[in-house]
Amino acid sequence: MPQLGLLPRRTWATLLSQLLRPPRAACISAVGCHSQVAEALLTSQPKPHQEKPNFIIKIPKGTRDLSPQQMVVREKILDMVVSCFKRHGAKGLDTPAFELTVPFARYLAMNKLKKMKRYQVGKVWRRESPTIVQGRYREFCQCDFDIAGHFDPMIPDAECLKIMCEVLSGLQLGDFLIKVNDRRIVDGMFAVCGVPESKFRAICASMDKLDKMSWRDVRHEMVAKKGLAPEVADRIGEYIQCHGGVSLIEQLFQDPRLSQNKQALEGLGDLKLLFEYLTLFGIAEKICFDLSLARGVDYYTGVIYEAVLLQTPAQAGEEPLNVGSVAAGGRYDELVATFDPKGHKVPCVGLSIGIERIFYIVEQRMKNSFKKVRTTETQVFVATPQKNFLRERLKLIAELWDAGIKAEMLYKNNPKLLTQLHYCENTGIPLVVIIGEQEQKEGVIKLRSVASREEVAIKRENLVAEIQKRLSES
Amino acid sequence: MPQLGLLPRRTWATLLSQLLRPPRAACISAVGCHSQVAEALLTSQPKPHQEKPNFIIKIPKGTRDLSPQQMVVREKILDMVVSCFKRHGAKGLDTPAFELTVPFARYLAMNKLKKMKRYQVGKVWRRESPTIVQGRYREFCQCDFDIAGHFDPMIPDAECLKIMCEVLSGLQLGDFLIKVNDRRIVDGMFAVCGVPESKFRAICASMDKLDKMSWRDVRHEMVAKKGLAPEVADRIGEYIQCHGGVSLIEQLFQDPRLSQNKQALEGLGDLKLLFEYLTLFGIAEKICFDLSLARGVDYYTGVIYEAVLLQTPAQAGEEPLNVGSVAAGGRYDELVATFDPKGHKVPCVGLSIGIERIFYIVEQRMKNSFKKVRTTETQVFVATPQKNFLRERLKLIAELWDAGIKAEMLYKNNPKLLTQLHYCENTGIPLVVIIGEQEQKEGVIKLRSVASREEVAIKRENLVAEIQKRLSES
Repeated sequence: MPQLGLLPRRTWATLLSQLLRPPRAACISAVGCHSQVAEALLTSQPKPHQEKPNFIIKIPKGTRDLSPQQMVVREKILDMVVSCFKRHGAKGLDTPAFELTVPFARYLAMNKLKKMKRYQVGKVWRRESPTIVQGRYREFCQCDFDIAGHFDPMIPDAECLKIMCEVLSGLQLGDFLIKVNDRRIVDGMFAVCGVPESKFRAICASMDKLDKMSWRDVRHEMVAKKGLAPEVADRIGEYIQCHGGVSLIEQLFQDPRLSQNKQALEGLGDLKLLFEYLTLFGIAEKICFDLSLARGVDYYTGVIYEAVLLQTPAQAGEEPLNVGSVAAGGRYDELVATFDPKGHKVPCVGLSIGIERIFYIVEQRMKNSFKKVRTTETQVFVATPQKNFLRERLKLIAELWDAGIKAEMLYKNNPKLLTQLHYCENTGIPLVVIIGEQEQKEGVIKLRSVASREEVAIKRENLVAEIQKRLSES
Repeated sequence: MPQLGLLPRRTWATLLSQLLRPPRAACISAVGCHSQVAEALLTSQPKPHQEKPNFIIKIPKGTRDLSPQQMVVREKILDMVVSCFKRHGAKGLDTPAFELTVPFARYLAMNKLKKMKRYQVGKVWRRESPTIVQGRYREFCQCDFDIAGHFDPMIPDAECLKIMCEVLSGLQLGDFLIKVNDRRIVDGMFAVCGVPESKFRAICASMDKLDKMSWRDVRHEMVAKKGLAPEVADRIGEYIQCHGGVSLIEQLFQDPRLSQNKQALEGLGDLKLLFEYLTLFGIAEKICFDLSLARGVDYYTGVIYEAVLLQTPAQAGEEPLNVGSVAAGGRYDELVATFDPKGHKVPCVGLSIGIERIFYIVEQRMKNSFKKVRTTETQVFVATPQKNFLRERLKLIAELWDAGIKAEMLYKNNPKLLTQLHYCENTGIPLVVIIGEQEQKEGVIKLRSVASREEVAIKRENLVAEIQKRLSES
């Protein structure tokens, strides 16, 4: 899904005031630096030839460093998601990270493209103020998939839901459910309940809060704040309790009020077709037609959906995670036209993966499991038991690198063998090649398995082939 | 290499004024949109329920969209570079893209890390105004590798040069040369030539322009603008003509003036050791000791280096490319201490790949070669020759996706077979599976090779296995 939201001038000003601080006479150094979410003041612009720095700078609020451990987790998750997008034939696209509007729709209009299936993954900026505790940062990773073009109804929509299922199953986050509704059904429901058309979007926005607030509180907001008649709110209240599958669709086709509304009937018809396709895709049991689903964003025009993880009882030592939805999207057929000088329409449907929330969940699980994550991919360590073997090690490691083998050695002239072997154990390197006087005399290298501690002597000229054989087997 | 440069307030103001425009009464739509480097004015904040937008927004100057074609090229190049960094045991690290200072040194000091080998790849922002024609954008991709820690001399430095060689060879950019010098030799040379110490950095900055300006012009700047005595400049002029290998180092050890300078001798000693290691790595012939190399950045303290592509005669139809250096770096032993409250020193050496320049070169070559780049990875297309086979196609494609096969179909109820086959030819999909009445009756699927147009009938239940076999063979 394209990212909505233009930063108003005042938001920019706030952001800037957090980034920049006025010059100070004294150098203020890092304080309280234990946290990765750095709130620490830092000296900037270090100039060796100038005693006092010009500026004091803060790491922008709501941003953070990502440690090698976090990077490994993220890389694996993103690889899995991107490979799913590619499996569905999507092309990569990149738009400026600081573009403050809906980039995909703008890209289509600008390049006069009538169809495109694309994904985009990368850092963008959020305008709301961040609640860091729930894994929402101002600088965050976005992960979108969209299909643009005039096609036969519900085929691309069904594929978007299939992709959501594949991603969420693939990431093994636990059981999940995708709620589905249609904007035309929401609007039709509002109309037959007696909501004045001018209040549709405001009431829709209230309804969107149902995942965080009770119906009682939402109803109060509709009546007290948005001026809706109480009996109208109550009629809405009856509808939004409905959720189910194809039988609910059939039931609503017979609903005396809803069946009189053209928009609602269109929506129901499309949902019926959608469920047929979802059944063919084998994912219908993951999907729930839910009349309470509203999706806050204005630009949706048809099917909308949102994936939620089903709460599992917290495992021992695991804090219960309240992470909200982990993926969402919908159809937006009018957005591209708003960017086009001639108003040409390009219907679109898409989805966003809540990738930061997913990172957060997986990181929490890793933390709770105390599993050690390897932060390097090194396959072979080059060691020596003797002094004065630096030159031999350098020649050997270059040979490994040139053969494409991931290799490390210590940057010491004369490291101790135990230090070298400990390094391998600590960092999870599986193989060690050892060269010393004896080996050099005999024209061999010792190849050691770190796990089994077994060592075999291998002819120098066969070493690379033997390592490659072992690595391909493991 | 860490990215130097704090944005002063006025630069921010300029940047902002380009990003945001005052509200206008009328909706200004996209104009002159043919160029990817979008200068076009765009309407932002499209609100379906509001006739006129609040803001007019421009794509920030010096940024651009990256098309699927460009993304494919970039992904391949970055994969190659990152896999080289990983081959050398580096960990991934991510710091905020909008942090305006030297992130790696700040990260080490903040987390009290005494050693780390890391790479970082991602979008960052440049403060200088962009010269787009040379592939320099304000929003650009950075690609850094650094080794931090107290180690025996020149071992990590030699590895940095090895990495530069591996990356540049691997990318097949053509012949290249890496110029090497040492800041202590530069400073020692200044001292023995008679440059006052207060002018060292200013004269160094002039010297750094030697790749863009002639010595005559640089000398003029030193004398006329920076107040250097003409005879001092002439002495520098003699030294900076020197370039060569180990023999030049030996020669300078005997130089009557330079051999009197302690700093210069230290630098020469380290370079001698470095060349020994480079020889063991098998890359000495790619490295040239060049006394004219200065590197503009202040924080270098030891070895400095810069890789340049050697100009090859322009191929037919190929415009000559003036791209400057494609990778550079050096040793900076004092930078981390400037971030540390107690001034603890963590010596560092690193390199930056000029990845945007490399993207530019490769894109130009692709353009000139008229080679078609596949922008998707789809392996199999699901087709039908008959009407009313949508449901069969949906079932079939879900089976392929679930088996991890990259598959596409047209989002049409009843597409023409020719349209479907043309789609495969145009997008480079190698295999087609065809299902129709005949196949359904016989319980088979036709598997067609797009290149050879050969078709074979395969039992429905063996299809996935057969496709996987074919894909693993190709």
